Amino acid sequence: MNIEDYLERKRLEVDEFLESHIPSLHTSPSTLHESIRYSLFAGGKRIRSILTIAAAEAIAPPPKALLPVASSFELIHTYSLIHDDLPAMDNDDYRRGKLTNHKIFGEAIAILAGDALQAMAFEFCSRPDFVNGLDPQCQIRVINELALGSGTQGMVGGQVLDIQAESREVDLAGLKTIHAHKTGQLIRAAVRVGALLSGSSNTQLERLTGYAEDVGLAFQIADDLLNVTGTPEELGKGTKTDADRGKKTYPSFYGLEESQALAQDCVDRAISRLAGFDEKADPLREIAQYIVSRRK
Amino acid sequence: MNIEDYLERKRLEVDEFLESHIPSLHTSPSTLHESIRYSLFAGGKRIRSILTIAAAEAIAPPPKALLPVASSFELIHTYSLIHDDLPAMDNDDYRRGKLTNHKIFGEAIAILAGDALQAMAFEFCSRPDFVNGLDPQCQIRVINELALGSGTQGMVGGQVLDIQAESREVDLAGLKTIHAHKTGQLIRAAVRVGALLSGSSNTQLERLTGYAEDVGLAFQIADDLLNVTGTPEELGKGTKTDADRGKKTYPSFYGLEESQALAQDCVDRAISRLAGFDEKADPLREIAQYIVSRRK
Repeated sequence: MNIEDYLERKRLEVDEFLESHIPSLHTSPSTLHESIRYSLFAGGKRIRSILTIAAAEAIAPPPKALLPVASSFELIHTYSLIHDDLPAMDNDDYRRGKLTNHKIFGEAIAILAGDALQAMAFEFCSRPDFVNGLDPQCQIRVINELALGSGTQGMVGGQVLDIQAESREVDLAGLKTIHAHKTGQLIRAAVRVGALLSGSSNTQLERLTGYAEDVGLAFQIADDLLNVTGTPEELGKGTKTDADRGKKTYPSFYGLEESQALAQDCVDRAISRLAGFDEKADPLREIAQYIVSRRK
Repeated sequence: MNIEDYLERKRLEVDEFLESHIPSLHTSPSTLHESIRYSLFAGGKRIRSILTIAAAEAIAPPPKALLPVASSFELIHTYSLIHDDLPAMDNDDYRRGKLTNHKIFGEAIAILAGDALQAMAFEFCSRPDFVNGLDPQCQIRVINELALGSGTQGMVGGQVLDIQAESREVDLAGLKTIHAHKTGQLIRAAVRVGALLSGSSNTQLERLTGYAEDVGLAFQIADDLLNVTGTPEELGKGTKTDADRGKKTYPSFYGLEESQALAQDCVDRAISRLAGFDEKADPLREIAQYIVSRRK
C-alpha cells in the first residue's frame, strides 16, 4: 500500500465530513463560526482521526458512526491548538503558515472558539443522526474515552505540566510524563475509540492501546526533532522555539541522532504490537513509520 | 415547603458529591486541581444542578445517576465563569467575594482549568460507575443536551453575542437573543436533562422546557437588576458594572420597576406551565419565585 495515498484519501474524508457538518459562516454568531472554521480548516493532517479510522478498520468493517466520532478528535485537537497559541500560553503568532486564531479574531473570540470546539466534539459523539445504529453502551465508552483523553489526566493535564516545566528542572522521567499526557493520551483515546467502534475484543483493545502509546511517544519525539531540524517553510510556524524557551525535549537530553534512534525504537515496538493482526492493520503499521519520517 | 431549606439541602448534596469526586489537591498536576477546586468551591448556589434535580423529582423518583449528571452542569457553569472573568473577556478581579481564578493562578492555568472542567462535565456524564443502571439511550440524549446547551448555539454562542453587543447597537430583540443563549440554554438543558433522567413523556418534557425558558429569562432579568440594585457585599463582586461598560440590559431598556414586573411575569408564566404536575413539582414552583426575590 501507498501510505501517502491512504493518508490523503482519509484526510479528505474527514475534511469533507467536517466541512459539511460544522455550522456555516452565515450561522449566528458568524464571527464565532468564522473563527472556528479558520483554525479547523488550516490544513491539519487529521492524524488523530485517521488513527481512529485505521484502528477501526484493522478489526472489522466499521459502523457509520466512525466518521463523526473520528472527526471529533480533530475538534478537540484544534481547540487545544487555539488555546495553546494564546498570549497567556505559548504566545505564538503563526500556525500552519497562517496567523494564529487570536491574531485574527482577538483573544476573547479565540478562547470562546476553543470552548465551543470542545463542546462540539461531544455533540458529534452524541448526535442521534451521527451515531444512529451504534450500540449505545459502546457510544458511552467512546465519549468517556474522549473526555478522559482531553481532561486533567490527559491532554490538559499534560499542557499544565508542560507550562510548569518552563520554570522548573525537568528530568527525563518528567519529560516522558509530559509527553505521555500532552499528546499521548488523546492519541491513545483516538486509537482505542476506533477499536471500540469496531467491537474489538479485550485483547485487541489492549494491543492497540500499546500500539497507541508507542506511536504517541514516537510522534512527540518526532515533533521535538522537527522543531530543531525543520524549516519554517516546512512547518508553517517558528522553529527552534523549544530551545529559545529553554524547553526540555528529547533532543536536549539525547542529542539528535540518539533521539532519532529512540523514535525508531518506538515505531518498531508499535508495529510489533500488531503481530496478531492481519493485513487490515497495514495502515496502522505504515502510519507508525510515517510519523517519524514526516517533514511537517 | 420551605424553599430556603430545600435549596440548602440540595446544594449540600451537590457540593458533597463534587467534593468527593473532583480530584484532590494532591493529584498531579496539583496546581490545575487547586485552580479547579478554588473556583468550583467558591460558594456557588448550584442553581443549575438543583433545577436538574427538581425537574427529575417532579416526575418520578430519579435514578442514581441524577447527582453526577446534575453536578456536571456546575462544572460547565464554573468553567464559563473562569473564562468570562479573564482579562481578554470581562477582566473581572472579583467573583463571589474572592479574587478571580486568573488573579490567583495566572491566565494560563485559568484557561486550562476551564478547559479541564468542561471535559470533566462530559466525563461525569459517561463514567460507568456514575451512570450505571441508566438506560444508555437516555444517557446519550443527556450528553447531547449538555453539549448543545454549552456550544455555539448555547452558552458560548451567547457569550460571543454578549461581547459583540458592547460595541454595537442592540435592540430589545437582540438583548433577548443574548439572554436566551448566554444563560438560557444551559438552564434549559439542566431542566430537560432532569426530565429525561426520570423518563418524562414528551408532553412533560415540552412543558418543563417552557418552564425552563421562562425561568432562564427571569433569572437573567433578576441578574441585570441585581447589578444595579445589589451591593458589592451582597453579590461578592463589583456592581453597576453593566452600566459602566455600556452594556444593554433589561433595566436600561425598561427601567427598574418595569423590569421587575417583567421578571415576575416570567415567573408566573413558568409556574403556569406546571399546571399538569402534582405537588412533586412544588420545588420547581418555589425556585421560580426564589429566582426573582434573591439578593445574590
